[in-house]
Amino acid sequence: MHAASLTVDSPPAATVGIIGAGQLARMTHQAGIALGVDVRALTPRPTDPAVLAGAAVQLGTHDDLDALAALARGCDVVTLDHEHTPPDLLDELVAAGCCVRPSPAAASFASDKLLARRALARAGFPVPAFTEAPGGDPDAIEAVEAFARQHGWPVVLKAPSGGYDGRGVELVTHRGELDASRLAATPGRLLVEEAVPIAAELAVLIARRPSGWCATYPLVETVQRDGICHELVMPARVPTQIAHRAARIAKSLADGLDVAGILAVELFLTTDDELVVNEVATRPHNSGHATIDATATSQFENHLRGILDWPLGDTTLLAPTAATVNVLGPDHPVDLRRSLPVALEDPRVRVHLYRKAHRPGRKLGHVTCLAPSHDEALDAARVAAAVLTAP
Amino acid sequence: MHAASLTVDSPPAATVGIIGAGQLARMTHQAGIALGVDVRALTPRPTDPAVLAGAAVQLGTHDDLDALAALARGCDVVTLDHEHTPPDLLDELVAAGCCVRPSPAAASFASDKLLARRALARAGFPVPAFTEAPGGDPDAIEAVEAFARQHGWPVVLKAPSGGYDGRGVELVTHRGELDASRLAATPGRLLVEEAVPIAAELAVLIARRPSGWCATYPLVETVQRDGICHELVMPARVPTQIAHRAARIAKSLADGLDVAGILAVELFLTTDDELVVNEVATRPHNSGHATIDATATSQFENHLRGILDWPLGDTTLLAPTAATVNVLGPDHPVDLRRSLPVALEDPRVRVHLYRKAHRPGRKLGHVTCLAPSHDEALDAARVAAAVLTAP
Repeated sequence: MHAASLTVDSPPAATVGIIGAGQLARMTHQAGIALGVDVRALTPRPTDPAVLAGAAVQLGTHDDLDALAALARGCDVVTLDHEHTPPDLLDELVAAGCCVRPSPAAASFASDKLLARRALARAGFPVPAFTEAPGGDPDAIEAVEAFARQHGWPVVLKAPSGGYDGRGVELVTHRGELDASRLAATPGRLLVEEAVPIAAELAVLIARRPSGWCATYPLVETVQRDGICHELVMPARVPTQIAHRAARIAKSLADGLDVAGILAVELFLTTDDELVVNEVATRPHNSGHATIDATATSQFENHLRGILDWPLGDTTLLAPTAATVNVLGPDHPVDLRRSLPVALEDPRVRVHLYRKAHRPGRKLGHVTCLAPSHDEALDAARVAAAVLTAP
Repeated sequence: MHAASLTVDSPPAATVGIIGAGQLARMTHQAGIALGVDVRALTPRPTDPAVLAGAAVQLGTHDDLDALAALARGCDVVTLDHEHTPPDLLDELVAAGCCVRPSPAAASFASDKLLARRALARAGFPVPAFTEAPGGDPDAIEAVEAFARQHGWPVVLKAPSGGYDGRGVELVTHRGELDASRLAATPGRLLVEEAVPIAAELAVLIARRPSGWCATYPLVETVQRDGICHELVMPARVPTQIAHRAARIAKSLADGLDVAGILAVELFLTTDDELVVNEVATRPHNSGHATIDATATSQFENHLRGILDWPLGDTTLLAPTAATVNVLGPDHPVDLRRSLPVALEDPRVRVHLYRKAHRPGRKLGHVTCLAPSHDEALDAARVAAAVLTAP
């Protein structure tokens, strides 16, 4: 029995619909409990992470307008846990009078890497050199080669949408690899970009109210492996002026996109100390998970506050440093019930489990540690994450 | 629809039954989400705070053995959100093979103030002078007068059980007031105690595993009004050696009671710098609410870890000071939906709403603020709490 179907004595402070019910919706629901905010998640699977955490569920899929309308009914605002909702359906929700935040325009910006890259370049944001190529076409190979002649090998091929956690991204180091490229052989548009010489991968999390007020989190440094975010430390180990430049880029992007809620901006710091914008997400983001334990207000609470047009909470870091390590499903079975108490033996580690069925490479949770130094925080979080998925 | 009734892909790390579904169960459920722990709450009211937060619900009452057994079925451990469960029913659960933590003995210790006071005195813990009097009996007046002749007026009368938030406690300043005392006129045992000259009211929160491992929180200073905890600051504004003495008392009490989970020990610091034990609770406690935002691991997470016999989390304070102010229902109607965004205008305040129907004097939530000084933290939390309940 779920309480949402019953008469309540005390109304929620707000009701928020989320399209999707994954770990982001799960942690948003958890944050909503403190504020008296009810979260209702749209998913066809009642065993999704947010539903298992007690969020109310609207059964249905994100590509079904009736399901989206049913989700929105009675909600103060509808928001997103992923980028897969067709933008025209979000437009129809808005046309029907629903409050959708981020706006369909901002959301579709984040869901199409080619569209985003063009808009960023047009607006003067620093981005890697890029071009579009037609995938699945003999011309694709030629277009990529022409790009490589101008910008040098290697080049990066990206599917403009649908990819996540490293899927839909290929690094191609020479012509021979290009012939074997799955992406180049797949029909559809292709984002071709230079492989920027990377000194560090960074992320700025910024919360924004529709009125324009913003709260920026300390700069995050991420470590990606095979396109998946493995680790992050906060604050990033870069000079202060780099952090300020990154924050200015994020603020200007948040304003330009008229974002409500969290905007995550992934940046490359090049070996020449240049910052270029890589990708953008208009929702809570994996690179912000340390905020749950390490800052006064988590990205999930500030996402709720931003989309509800409530004042934003303090984003101050509460420890010298924090590190987060993702718990990725290994190739062997895992038994978190058995391994969790072992991982908790270090009293400093903060474990977050998503209740997702195990699959190799899938994010099953994350571990955060606050410590006096980055190395200490990272070491402790790495050990706990490894223990959680030990055979 | 509630997820607990459905097949799940990924089992919970543990399932915990809670007798009661108030704000303590609500915040325990919230803490359980991170650990992948499912919380199931026993209550006859599906609009109780924990259920509205998405905890699974077992409909039934705490004085019904069948309901308790139904709650326990499939749970790794059963714990308590209040002290009203008849101890013999808890004993029957244990006899039936259920894991109940705290143990029925520890729980009943906390639920009977007279029993607790006697045991504390017998074990050599410092307690206020006290005696038992038969309420509702002409002899009650005589017994209280005899006690007052020995220890002086005023005296404090307490109902040994069932009282909370100031109910069941009376301060009697002279013989005339005694004649009018409702407690003295009510049949049943009566705890009569000296009115200790109080310099400060303190509380120690300590988490304990069945194996004996403990984690002690920084000492808390509470401000009570009419027997209700209104405010608390952490760490308490007392000399370090007082804090150490208080921690030693709590540790020795936790071991003596063989507590699993959180033990809260309320102490008086007398004007003579003596510490005496006032009351004891074997569960998360109102005086520990600042731990949610102010320490690395909240009392709710450490209660779960303690009762599950998992390693305990770090209890370090993450800011110089923290203050918590309870949000008590005023005499006029409140509209938290309207007042919450106003309260959040101070980015430092952390608001926690319990989704309880409004009644004058009822705890509807609490506000915590971390700050460089006690005064700054208290001021900010007071303002936000006042704003929340403004007419």
